[in-house]
Amino acid sequence: MAQQHLDPTDPAADVATGESLAAYLRAQATEFLRALRLHRETGGAHQANGTEESVDAAQLLRRSARRISGNLHTFRPLLDPDWSEEMRPELAWLSGTLGLEHAYEARLERLLLALHRLSGATVLPAQAVDAALAAAPLPAGGPGGATATQERGNLTVGAAKAGALLERQLTLARTRAHSTALQALGSSRFHAVADKVAVLASEVPLTLTAPTTDLRPPAAAAEERLTAAIGALPLVTAGHPYNAEALVHGLSPDPSPHPQDGPWHQVRLLLRLHRYAQEVLHGGNSPVDVRLLSAGQALNRHRDASEAAAAAAQAARTPRIAPATAYALGVLHADQRHEVEAARFAFQQAWQKQTVNAP
Amino acid sequence: MAQQHLDPTDPAADVATGESLAAYLRAQATEFLRALRLHRETGGAHQANGTEESVDAAQLLRRSARRISGNLHTFRPLLDPDWSEEMRPELAWLSGTLGLEHAYEARLERLLLALHRLSGATVLPAQAVDAALAAAPLPAGGPGGATATQERGNLTVGAAKAGALLERQLTLARTRAHSTALQALGSSRFHAVADKVAVLASEVPLTLTAPTTDLRPPAAAAEERLTAAIGALPLVTAGHPYNAEALVHGLSPDPSPHPQDGPWHQVRLLLRLHRYAQEVLHGGNSPVDVRLLSAGQALNRHRDASEAAAAAAQAARTPRIAPATAYALGVLHADQRHEVEAARFAFQQAWQKQTVNAP
Repeated sequence: MAQQHLDPTDPAADVATGESLAAYLRAQATEFLRALRLHRETGGAHQANGTEESVDAAQLLRRSARRISGNLHTFRPLLDPDWSEEMRPELAWLSGTLGLEHAYEARLERLLLALHRLSGATVLPAQAVDAALAAAPLPAGGPGGATATQERGNLTVGAAKAGALLERQLTLARTRAHSTALQALGSSRFHAVADKVAVLASEVPLTLTAPTTDLRPPAAAAEERLTAAIGALPLVTAGHPYNAEALVHGLSPDPSPHPQDGPWHQVRLLLRLHRYAQEVLHGGNSPVDVRLLSAGQALNRHRDASEAAAAAAQAARTPRIAPATAYALGVLHADQRHEVEAARFAFQQAWQKQTVNAP
Repeated sequence: MAQQHLDPTDPAADVATGESLAAYLRAQATEFLRALRLHRETGGAHQANGTEESVDAAQLLRRSARRISGNLHTFRPLLDPDWSEEMRPELAWLSGTLGLEHAYEARLERLLLALHRLSGATVLPAQAVDAALAAAPLPAGGPGGATATQERGNLTVGAAKAGALLERQLTLARTRAHSTALQALGSSRFHAVADKVAVLASEVPLTLTAPTTDLRPPAAAAEERLTAAIGALPLVTAGHPYNAEALVHGLSPDPSPHPQDGPWHQVRLLLRLHRYAQEVLHGGNSPVDVRLLSAGQALNRHRDASEAAAAAAQAARTPRIAPATAYALGVLHADQRHEVEAARFAFQQAWQKQTVNAP
């Protein structure tokens, strides 16, 4: 009989219901509490510069928070609406607050790697950056008459100084984000969230009919929202290499992030919601969907490059920087916008494969 | 019998010999003299700012000079070596001198179009450029405290000022090139070349055996040199979109043009020699080889973008420019280096098609 229940040709077999949702949410809540304990044990007490373990713990906290929050949204008809509506913004706040430190760290790493790549085969030497910082700043509009060689030298120093400027700005932002995250984790607001998650670990507030409700319709609706959003993306353009679309507003006065990036960021979120809903439906038994994974990775890369490009543009607005520094930041900005375009191409390729090969 | 001679299955039919080469060179020499007459009639007498017709005449002069010079090289065993060796450098000098004015004009147009595109949908207004020029230059390292909006404003003015700077520098270069070209056309050196071309129009100095020598072996050798040079290009990388190879030295201290561009420029020249040799072999009867044409166009685009990127980098070395101008030039440089990469991809695509579809 158990065998029969696993028959894949039986349409009633393995139908996930509200019971599956409850089990998933309890498991994620337990993961959340475990990450919280890990965080408290490994570095939550420090005021700044948490250890690597505490950063990992923060990532694990976010991981569960995102999954709980996402599925509260996708399967909201099955859950107590008051509880759900109170819980979701709190989880979103927590996830956002805890994510900033890592985001600034990754952004700086991405930008320094790009500067390194753009400076040719030699490694961007930390010493050169330090030297550029230590040296008296070059007069930005100093007297002319410099030889071409000296000017070329300035451009290289420009890359080093751009790196130093970004390092200063993004390290400061990261340190602030770290403090904010620590404050958040010590706040009464966080304790209220943690208490609710602790309750969720044993008791999921399902509606009366939820335990036997089929999860497939709300999961299908999440997939439809994703498909519709992807349908609205300029995929024909994105699939044409070197379409030069991502840099179209590279020098426009529009504030960053570029408005054209918005729909892609939105698809990234919808793709994540779809993935989380699939986790609920299939539990730990679902095979990894490689295409969905590579599409998601392309959208992560898109987001990272978009934000890195904005950071380079922002740094170029720092008062009193030397022209050589500004030039290097301009090259860096354009390079990251091309990364944005490359990520769109990669997404288009991944998604096209999925459509063609799907049964 | 005439019909039989045109039989395409007859291997002896339509074999081009030294006679065909002589006919081709006479025809090109006649074209050269016609262009020279056109030039003298339409604007050669003006000291500067030649009319459009005189620019066209200069292009026609170059067109014949390149074809004569290229085929003297490819078919040199069939021609009097002393005469050949004396003639070729003179034609190369003439072609180079006459090409500069047009090159600077096209480079400026390419860069202004790119700035326009990078500034978003609105046209780069000539008024804005004029206003930026007329306005007192912004202090490059002025006191801080500017708001984000003001700084963003500076970046847009940055694009306009970058455009104005490039316009000033490239217009000056173009004017100088125009004067140099006029001086060259009035020089005794040019008169000596023109006299030799006039002789060539009626009498081609073939070797004794040349009239019956098969042209196919030297033409095949030219094609082999092209194929070998293409074989040495990094085409696997170029065929992988967004490989980020062209900007690898975007901030390196190496003098421009980028050393990595050299082999591509060389292929561009070899492709031209191959095309000219085919003209000799097939006369006016050869069908246009679309793939060869599109490969050549991709290499022209590669050369143009490479030189435009270098001009943007060069302009960024101008002393006393504002950081916003330098930033815009950095974005522009990177944009043109991506055009270089796009052109390599286009070449790879065109060439691959040729290899696959060739009989």
